[in-house]
Amino acid sequence: MKVTVIGIGLIGGSMARSLRIAEFADMVYGVDSNNEHIRTALDLGIIDQAISLQQAAKMSDLIIVATPVDSIIGIVSKLLDEMQDSIIIDVGSTKSALMQAIKSHPNRGRFVATHPMAGTEYSGPEAAIPDLFINKCTVLVDIEDSDEDAVEAVKNMYRAMQMSMVFHDSVDHDLHTAYVSHISHISSFALALTVLEKEKNEKRIFELAGGGFRSTVRLANSNADTWVPIFEQNRDHVLDVLDEHINTISRFRTLLIKKDFEGFRNMILQANQIKRIVH
Amino acid sequence: MKVTVIGIGLIGGSMARSLRIAEFADMVYGVDSNNEHIRTALDLGIIDQAISLQQAAKMSDLIIVATPVDSIIGIVSKLLDEMQDSIIIDVGSTKSALMQAIKSHPNRGRFVATHPMAGTEYSGPEAAIPDLFINKCTVLVDIEDSDEDAVEAVKNMYRAMQMSMVFHDSVDHDLHTAYVSHISHISSFALALTVLEKEKNEKRIFELAGGGFRSTVRLANSNADTWVPIFEQNRDHVLDVLDEHINTISRFRTLLIKKDFEGFRNMILQANQIKRIVH
Repeated sequence: MKVTVIGIGLIGGSMARSLRIAEFADMVYGVDSNNEHIRTALDLGIIDQAISLQQAAKMSDLIIVATPVDSIIGIVSKLLDEMQDSIIIDVGSTKSALMQAIKSHPNRGRFVATHPMAGTEYSGPEAAIPDLFINKCTVLVDIEDSDEDAVEAVKNMYRAMQMSMVFHDSVDHDLHTAYVSHISHISSFALALTVLEKEKNEKRIFELAGGGFRSTVRLANSNADTWVPIFEQNRDHVLDVLDEHINTISRFRTLLIKKDFEGFRNMILQANQIKRIVH
Repeated sequence: MKVTVIGIGLIGGSMARSLRIAEFADMVYGVDSNNEHIRTALDLGIIDQAISLQQAAKMSDLIIVATPVDSIIGIVSKLLDEMQDSIIIDVGSTKSALMQAIKSHPNRGRFVATHPMAGTEYSGPEAAIPDLFINKCTVLVDIEDSDEDAVEAVKNMYRAMQMSMVFHDSVDHDLHTAYVSHISHISSFALALTVLEKEKNEKRIFELAGGGFRSTVRLANSNADTWVPIFEQNRDHVLDVLDEHINTISRFRTLLIKKDFEGFRNMILQANQIKRIVH
């Protein structure tokens, strides 16, 4: 199958590598507005050939749009305008605005919205790793608005990547990713800023950073170009969970102020319940 | 060398394993108030023999106190009362209260306060892994109050464990570990509670939990028996950094409310600076 990846960064590049290894793609085209990324992707063998967006619309069986979410709407709309027989998917972290924008497009059925729940804190084609997705989960969104054969092809692709799949509508998707994924990033950005503010001596941070701090602050390396548009598009849901998060942290503070360590213990024991789900 | 580990959990058990592999310890005794832990530690070959605290004081060249910080003061005081030629160390996360308590003990010089900056979110002897400490850093605290030969022996021990060492006084140690390590745990406990509160459907959390959420929430599995006494002893410093953390998260909230995404981007770019230190 001829696959085009638009936006050859961490996610797009990793998908290209994964689909080639799985022999799902026998030709991988790449589109990227950053020439440096194109060069690196060619050097690393992530893509076979660089093409333009217009060429992609004509030459591909499957097009994966893996750019930041603020540019996905424009790119998908253009592809739907110009495509012939392709199937188009996106892999962005927010869906409602995109779905709204393309709702009435005559080629809407050829588009399938997807969100593979995997990533690292790194970005760019150098960060692409072929086994990023194995045994992870992809969300397929609003599939009743996509043609059946297109959905089937996309399911086959994610099966080839060894991913499981779940199905949400776009409103649900944006709500629940705010609750689980987007808040984790703010928490980690804030922790990094807090420690950098309090601990002026960076050598001390380096010395005292055990595995725990490193793990909790890992997402603070995440790319602003990727994440600002996500927070912009999902602002209301993120604010909702952020309010809850500030309340929760403030409860820890109040317990410390009152020296209520029994209450503090109970909060920790409740937090430990997360191990039923994530372990 | 005959080494006794008091408290055979994640840290004590991992040290026992590491010191045996390094051939620093040729005999490892274990003391634990939990009989289940003793049995497991014997079964797993972490310790050679279970003994009492009184026996430990007489039979050991080196005694490692690896219990929760609320019991360290009592155990170290008792060991200093009853010891003959041993060297005693602790590996706890807080130091000021302990140092104050044993300050005038006639055997104070035989004690060396240490804090290896390593751990996982698991606990108990089953969690003990021999390579937990390799290439990590240990803080040696208030060493001018310890005998020179005792400090030298402890340095040799941490060298055998392939750890680097830094030297802080106890007040500095407690301040800086609050800033880097202790706040990370509250941040992670709070994130777990927030997500459990907002996302009532645990299956959704499981599906949407990519590597990012898993990493950020990892410390939320940490043991309450270990951590409550740490927050109790280091309350003032923790409150100090917790206030800063709440302010930082609230700044993200204000920017979202004002839809100031340029400001939001600037905060992310500042947070990214952590990659100079932790990568």
